[in-house]
Amino acid sequence: MTLRRVAYTGARSLAVETAGTPPLPAGHVRIDVAYTGICGTDLHVYHGAMDARVEPPGVIGHEMSGRIAEIGPDVTGWHVGEQVTVMPLVPCGQCPACSAGHDHICHRLVFLGIDATGSMQTSWTVPATTLVRLPADLRLDHAALVEPTAVAVHDVHRADLRAGEKALVVGGGPIGLLIAIVAHRSGADVLLAEPDPYRRAVAEDVGLPTYDPSAEDGAGSIARWTGGAGAAVAFEVSGAQAGVGTAVEALATRGRLVQVAIHPVPREISLHRFFWRELTLVGARLYDRGDFETAVRLIADGEIPAARLISRIEPLERAAQAFEALEEGGGVMKVLIDCRARGEDRR
Amino acid sequence: MTLRRVAYTGARSLAVETAGTPPLPAGHVRIDVAYTGICGTDLHVYHGAMDARVEPPGVIGHEMSGRIAEIGPDVTGWHVGEQVTVMPLVPCGQCPACSAGHDHICHRLVFLGIDATGSMQTSWTVPATTLVRLPADLRLDHAALVEPTAVAVHDVHRADLRAGEKALVVGGGPIGLLIAIVAHRSGADVLLAEPDPYRRAVAEDVGLPTYDPSAEDGAGSIARWTGGAGAAVAFEVSGAQAGVGTAVEALATRGRLVQVAIHPVPREISLHRFFWRELTLVGARLYDRGDFETAVRLIADGEIPAARLISRIEPLERAAQAFEALEEGGGVMKVLIDCRARGEDRR
Ligand SMILES: [Zn+2]
Ligand SMILES: [Zn+2]
Ligand SMILES: [Zn+2]
Ligand SMILES: [Zn+2]
Repeated sequence: MTLRRVAYTGARSLAVETAGTPPLPAGHVRIDVAYTGICGTDLHVYHGAMDARVEPPGVIGHEMSGRIAEIGPDVTGWHVGEQVTVMPLVPCGQCPACSAGHDHICHRLVFLGIDATGSMQTSWTVPATTLVRLPADLRLDHAALVEPTAVAVHDVHRADLRAGEKALVVGGGPIGLLIAIVAHRSGADVLLAEPDPYRRAVAEDVGLPTYDPSAEDGAGSIARWTGGAGAAVAFEVSGAQAGVGTAVEALATRGRLVQVAIHPVPREISLHRFFWRELTLVGARLYDRGDFETAVRLIADGEIPAARLISRIEPLERAAQAFEALEEGGGVMKVLIDCRARGEDRR
Repeated sequence: MTLRRVAYTGARSLAVETAGTPPLPAGHVRIDVAYTGICGTDLHVYHGAMDARVEPPGVIGHEMSGRIAEIGPDVTGWHVGEQVTVMPLVPCGQCPACSAGHDHICHRLVFLGIDATGSMQTSWTVPATTLVRLPADLRLDHAALVEPTAVAVHDVHRADLRAGEKALVVGGGPIGLLIAIVAHRSGADVLLAEPDPYRRAVAEDVGLPTYDPSAEDGAGSIARWTGGAGAAVAFEVSGAQAGVGTAVEALATRGRLVQVAIHPVPREISLHRFFWRELTLVGARLYDRGDFETAVRLIADGEIPAARLISRIEPLERAAQAFEALEEGGGVMKVLIDCRARGEDRR
């Protein structure tokens, strides 16, 4: 049996190729993949920035949906045909983080789609422990947003956000927008700072107020919005030095800054402000099973405007072009790769 | 009636002078000051770095002990002769911080000894709301350590430190040492990083293990101490860029960094490490009344080795020399100024 897959073959190079279906070990299942979303991390791999972890030719992709196609030995509780997504984490179970009950940040974490084969292929074999059940009537294109939504759920949880609190989200890409939506659904009063007009338009469309930090006096906007007190919570999702400064300056006394974006280099931070206002900075990475299940429910209940967030769906054969188009930026939120084998039913 | 006082008259200049005793307004008491400790903040004022807040000739000092000498109108519950210290905070009661119940970090906080007259004088008039009762048998030289001990209690509280956790204290001046002592008394396994050999010797003397971050491989020391897991908590008390790096690197997954020292300029911080290990940074400033009362109890119960921490007691008339000697550093922990008027009983 064969499958079609998108292989990362080196910096800025993706090949769509046919390969043999790997064997199905004990404890594993094979999934017919429906959709795989392209994530910022995938773009990072594509740039060649993660060659230390992704060995070419490696299959990337971890934001996915599909149906169970085959069940390996020693797997119970799952059936062929069930709609599933995958929480792409394989922790070691023994390191200090795992022992302390934080296995999503395991010191030897294997992240499927980076450290091991990902989902940008028609057929994907994964440990049954990573499966997450989807409602039978959930659209599988929408379900490809479960993983990034779980990130947002985790971030909002790390903020300890309470209803009525003011939350600034700095950066309005897919994760920033999902954080803003989840925070808003949690009863927070949300404001999104994003320079790109297309992203601001999507946010406004789904009912979130925004401002342009590159044009407006941000400090003034935030002071007006919070009556001079500052925001209770700021989510730093921009990954930029300026975004960090905006988030720190925006916070009220005892405010919490949730660090979501990846900053490849150290950033300058006003520790004096942290001291003076007794601020808290909280790192947030990935998600746990509870976050994933919450994300499934939010998408199934229509709380996440999935249709508005999915800008485009491209066939597997055009994956390279989809990555190139994302590189050019502008007018794009989330792009999905349609990984269904030809002839499969298209709902 | 007259008093003797130490007046800050401009950068690196202190004058000991006689002045009239100010009137005693309603709601205030007059204290015969016994001792006033010299704090890092006082040295900062002395350097001329805080002229925006301390108007010459201003009386500084806020780590004190004394006895109530006179009670103004509308003050109830206090008696002449009672031993007291002062929590030197006068909050506005109306700003967002005060409204949120965090009046110790009031946006318009008046800090006695900086923004208003301090205790480095024989007689000090303060609002009765700032008084904190001392046991009648507590030595007043030891009681001058209540204020810095309250800082340490607050910092340990902000760390949410639990018994058995490993806590690294970066910086072994008076506040760092007090934090280490309070953390140790709370059941934590404490290690102190301090380059100065005299300060390390004092710490070892009171039973705290130390290492020299300027000589040893700090990462190795911490890895050995924590079995490779890292510390649950790090207190940054050094105020230096290198100290921040040491604290961040030392932390275990989900570790908490408590920012105690004042950093006058922004610092470079690895936000990637905060993300990767889901670390938390917590700013900690001053104390509340509960922290102060805990500090009184710790000193009264002999939990704080006050005698070992007080390096020298100098008479008020020699305050300028005491500041100069502290400037030279080396071989000094806490220096107290004896503010008792001549002829007062000397216990
Ligand atoms: Zn992702
Ligand atoms: Zn592990
Ligand atoms: Zn002080
Ligand atoms: Zn206030």
